[in-house]
Amino acid sequence: MKRAHNFYAGPSTLPLSVLKELQGEMVEYHNLGLSLLETSHRSPEYDEVHHGAMHLVKELLSLPDNYKVLFLQGGATMQFSMVPMNFLAEGSHADYLNSGAWAKKAIADARLYGSVEVTFDGKEKGYMSLPEPRSVVSTPGAQYVHITSNETIGGVQWKDFPATEAPLVADMSSDILSRPIPIERFGLIYAGAQKNLGPSGVTLVIVREDLLTKEQGKVGAYLKYSTHAESDSLYNTPPVFGIYALGKVLSWVKAQGGLPAVTANNRTKADLVYRAIESTDGFYHCPVDPSFRSDMNIVFTLRKGDLDKSFLDGSEERGMLGLKGHRSVGGFRASLYNAMPIEGAKALADYMVEFAQKNG
Amino acid sequence: MKRAHNFYAGPSTLPLSVLKELQGEMVEYHNLGLSLLETSHRSPEYDEVHHGAMHLVKELLSLPDNYKVLFLQGGATMQFSMVPMNFLAEGSHADYLNSGAWAKKAIADARLYGSVEVTFDGKEKGYMSLPEPRSVVSTPGAQYVHITSNETIGGVQWKDFPATEAPLVADMSSDILSRPIPIERFGLIYAGAQKNLGPSGVTLVIVREDLLTKEQGKVGAYLKYSTHAESDSLYNTPPVFGIYALGKVLSWVKAQGGLPAVTANNRTKADLVYRAIESTDGFYHCPVDPSFRSDMNIVFTLRKGDLDKSFLDGSEERGMLGLKGHRSVGGFRASLYNAMPIEGAKALADYMVEFAQKNG
Repeated sequence: MKRAHNFYAGPSTLPLSVLKELQGEMVEYHNLGLSLLETSHRSPEYDEVHHGAMHLVKELLSLPDNYKVLFLQGGATMQFSMVPMNFLAEGSHADYLNSGAWAKKAIADARLYGSVEVTFDGKEKGYMSLPEPRSVVSTPGAQYVHITSNETIGGVQWKDFPATEAPLVADMSSDILSRPIPIERFGLIYAGAQKNLGPSGVTLVIVREDLLTKEQGKVGAYLKYSTHAESDSLYNTPPVFGIYALGKVLSWVKAQGGLPAVTANNRTKADLVYRAIESTDGFYHCPVDPSFRSDMNIVFTLRKGDLDKSFLDGSEERGMLGLKGHRSVGGFRASLYNAMPIEGAKALADYMVEFAQKNG
Repeated sequence: MKRAHNFYAGPSTLPLSVLKELQGEMVEYHNLGLSLLETSHRSPEYDEVHHGAMHLVKELLSLPDNYKVLFLQGGATMQFSMVPMNFLAEGSHADYLNSGAWAKKAIADARLYGSVEVTFDGKEKGYMSLPEPRSVVSTPGAQYVHITSNETIGGVQWKDFPATEAPLVADMSSDILSRPIPIERFGLIYAGAQKNLGPSGVTLVIVREDLLTKEQGKVGAYLKYSTHAESDSLYNTPPVFGIYALGKVLSWVKAQGGLPAVTANNRTKADLVYRAIESTDGFYHCPVDPSFRSDMNIVFTLRKGDLDKSFLDGSEERGMLGLKGHRSVGGFRASLYNAMPIEGAKALADYMVEFAQKNG
């Protein structure tokens, strides 16, 4: 097979070695006579996979002991409800920073459960910029401050994080594990797995233990973080395949050299594409404030919009998939998650330069 | 490989042919140059898989057009919250039938959201029996009536279903697709996939459309059924692998001859094991009322409890896994879900008779 360069915004490309391992073990796991998918989630075989994956999250992100790692389901979209449901006490409020499409969804759900103060709104700059992190302070009495670390649709990314008095809560779905996190500034982090962590179907939650004591009362078992924290995410049947694959992706990250190596690779890949954009004399345009351009999702348009189809067709002929921009913004988007090899970013940058020369 | 006979209560055995297909396609799907796990959930390839699986649910269960099929996450445990959150209006109540361990969990969560009338409690018969279905009526004003179609831990199963005035809601996690359902009696059915539908990580919900108009107001996007109904379960990233595998399991069911064939097989398998229990002159004991013995999960004890370890060791030597009873009840449990071949049930029945003869 000729492997495609996979620029989809998510579910994203996976390391080929991980896919091959999953393939090798799909029918029979470790001479058990059955697949891991078929064993009980209480079996010693699954237990090792489950706790192994949890341990790797802690190790790779250097989490202190007072943070719990949870494996949930429902994606960031479910966290948009779970966070306020658990932490937005009646009569109190939380601060939300509106950085774009995903932040808006988090805000809309939070408003169903309590009062929301939008302390930053990117609207006047078309959601193409973010505030200076040091300028972000929590309002008096805020239960938490919510940010979206990377907007996959807008292509904006926090490069450093606020240090707020109220616990900082972050949707890190699209850039978790792509760079180091100053974990001590965060109360809770959540992320759908399907960008940097593995296939879709698992939601990673990292929560500082003291927050668990602040949960509201009337929340059902699955929807309370403490349920999962107390049972190591084995309260009910976990998404076995998702956690198993996530563990393999984390092992791959570790083998690459961990977070330092992955961070350097991600910078290299993003630089290749941003430089292609900047080097073509306005042929391509990235609308995002240079201080907050995402390393994960690079959005760009062609000055000559009538070349869009030709650009896309040419990319697909070269085995580059998923470059079409999100339907709400048009143009193009190159998603360069952890498992995208440098060669993929280079192939795209080369094609962009070549296409600009031919059509400029 | 020698394939084990897999009696785990869940995640359960999967058809070998399905595991092999998943294996064959794991690294590359349909000459795409990537795995299905890596494609966008908005891609035509995934779309076909997603809607194909939905269509098979409708076809195999003969669902009328006014029922929607949803693919959610979080298992039945999350449904324990979602059902009352959406349908238990403030100041109103719902009826719950307490048939055992799983019903109790549903009741506990419902009480957080509204008022619950327990209209049947199996307690005095040790949760070893169920009411006559025709005797079940909804109380005046009940928003819905909740039952658990099969209790995996207790091993009791409704053989026919009530026809109530209020919409009937059922947790069918452990016997969905094992037999025909009189769908017209149900308002909503939910089921974790990991018994009869595929690997863990997907929750099937079947909902009668008119119920969607009765949802409560202040419920976050992921937690509203209508969100998923309106977007064909593509509101946010679905659990791609889970739905993909579920579709393959459903195709396998169809190839077996659909629900009639599967139902007949399940009866045959359960009969083999129950007959082994009954034929050994009290050596084995099944505590469940014969009118409500589950075809999915057969629980039994040995009269001579000191032989438990020897029985279990012998079963494992013969490649029979997962027979140990649930930690809350002890003894043994043989789970005979759809994908357990008749030979598996026969191997167990033969072993039971042989063991009884040797130790009786």
